[in-house]
Amino acid sequence: MCAPRFPPARAELWRTAHALADAARPAVLAHFRATGLEADNKDAAGFDPVTAADRASEEAMRAVLAELRPQDAVLGEEQAATPGTSGLTWVLDPIDGTRGFLSGTPTWGVLIGLADDEGPLLGIIDQPYIGERFWGGQGEAIVEGPMGRRTLRARAPRPLSEAIVFTTFPEVGTEDEGAAFRRVSAKARLTRYGTDCYAYALIASGQIDLVIEAGLHPYDVMAPIAVVQAAGGVVTNWQGGPAHQGGQIIAAANAAVHAEALALLNG
Amino acid sequence: MCAPRFPPARAELWRTAHALADAARPAVLAHFRATGLEADNKDAAGFDPVTAADRASEEAMRAVLAELRPQDAVLGEEQAATPGTSGLTWVLDPIDGTRGFLSGTPTWGVLIGLADDEGPLLGIIDQPYIGERFWGGQGEAIVEGPMGRRTLRARAPRPLSEAIVFTTFPEVGTEDEGAAFRRVSAKARLTRYGTDCYAYALIASGQIDLVIEAGLHPYDVMAPIAVVQAAGGVVTNWQGGPAHQGGQIIAAANAAVHAEALALLNG
Repeated sequence: MCAPRFPPARAELWRTAHALADAARPAVLAHFRATGLEADNKDAAGFDPVTAADRASEEAMRAVLAELRPQDAVLGEEQAATPGTSGLTWVLDPIDGTRGFLSGTPTWGVLIGLADDEGPLLGIIDQPYIGERFWGGQGEAIVEGPMGRRTLRARAPRPLSEAIVFTTFPEVGTEDEGAAFRRVSAKARLTRYGTDCYAYALIASGQIDLVIEAGLHPYDVMAPIAVVQAAGGVVTNWQGGPAHQGGQIIAAANAAVHAEALALLNG
Repeated sequence: MCAPRFPPARAELWRTAHALADAARPAVLAHFRATGLEADNKDAAGFDPVTAADRASEEAMRAVLAELRPQDAVLGEEQAATPGTSGLTWVLDPIDGTRGFLSGTPTWGVLIGLADDEGPLLGIIDQPYIGERFWGGQGEAIVEGPMGRRTLRARAPRPLSEAIVFTTFPEVGTEDEGAAFRRVSAKARLTRYGTDCYAYALIASGQIDLVIEAGLHPYDVMAPIAVVQAAGGVVTNWQGGPAHQGGQIIAAANAAVHAEALALLNG
């Protein structure tokens, strides 16, 4: 085990991370399941809604950072990146899963990651409606929610034929990416769709074995990588390299099922 | 509006329905996200897990009925049907969405319906992990959960091109059923998967426009039909007839989007 990269400030950084999640909760819930909620369409080619909730959530978190950690950089989905002087960057997705949010499902989340140049240091996946928070990094791997506080631990190896695989959209990405995904899902016990960031929380919770996605942004993956890795899972891109820049991602409960799925993705 | 079919006993029947949901909650939560949870495979051709939670949930509800309403029949997923003398039948799905339950997602539910020969009289969709209950029938249409108590009301008509469509599995059912579904989803704004009974609750909550499924059992649909209809929605089979026997089902927020989708299903 390596020593933590920032032991002196660890408690302060965790306090900041939770303060961000606490600030985002009321900002997004004020808009969740509101009658007549509508979304701008910021991606002319598809459906990528940006809601008032998205903006309010990022604004609330940036206000916390301006007060508590003005020395850190901020990379968010909604606003222009803010430079910092500390070498640390907060990576914020104010609502991951805006389509799910617009549909009223409870599996979208607020993602809060902290990274340096090498990748994520810690992360939070927060589900405000359920009141459920998953966090990991720097020696912590915890979920707190309706059933109290528990340690996160990804499940032990089992054959792919016994594994549960998640992705958000059945088409996954391009035609080739969809075909690669189906090589894995065809050999798995069960494939489920539509959960956005919540699927990574389910890996960290020891409930499922694999999440495979494509076309992701850094703010989609930074926090989930930290949470899954803290729970003992493995996250890489489809070539087996670092995944924190986004793109194609495979998150696995353990190295064995990661290797089995990676071989099929590239098969 | 017709008069309620059982006005004298209405309050008693609602009390019973909520007592059933209250009894099921701890029974299922004792098993939810339990480490090492495994499922029997009762459908050799596919994946239809029956968990200890499923059985415990139905047993807990049957114990309540044996005490409070021994005169009513009981139709449950897990045990043999129990005859009654009152002309009323409790239709119980102790866990709708066992695949979701096994995966740790929070969109499975406990379904409690009450029916006579003509169909559902009232229904409850309960999500124990979130602590969220949707109920409808006999003049009530209510959700109670993390954001308090609200009236359920399905959304007003909008063109199918603006509508949100849900189903549980991308393949939907047979090849023909899948093709029929895709005729609808191709014209919709957004299609989402994987939510089981929770999708019906989202129609009743005014969040989405359509749920289209196939291959369902009576215990899958009885409670959702009652909740959606109580919120002003329309539920039929794919031929436009009664849906409470299961099979192919289309639940719509209103008559206009129901008609538009039904035409495409049969196009």
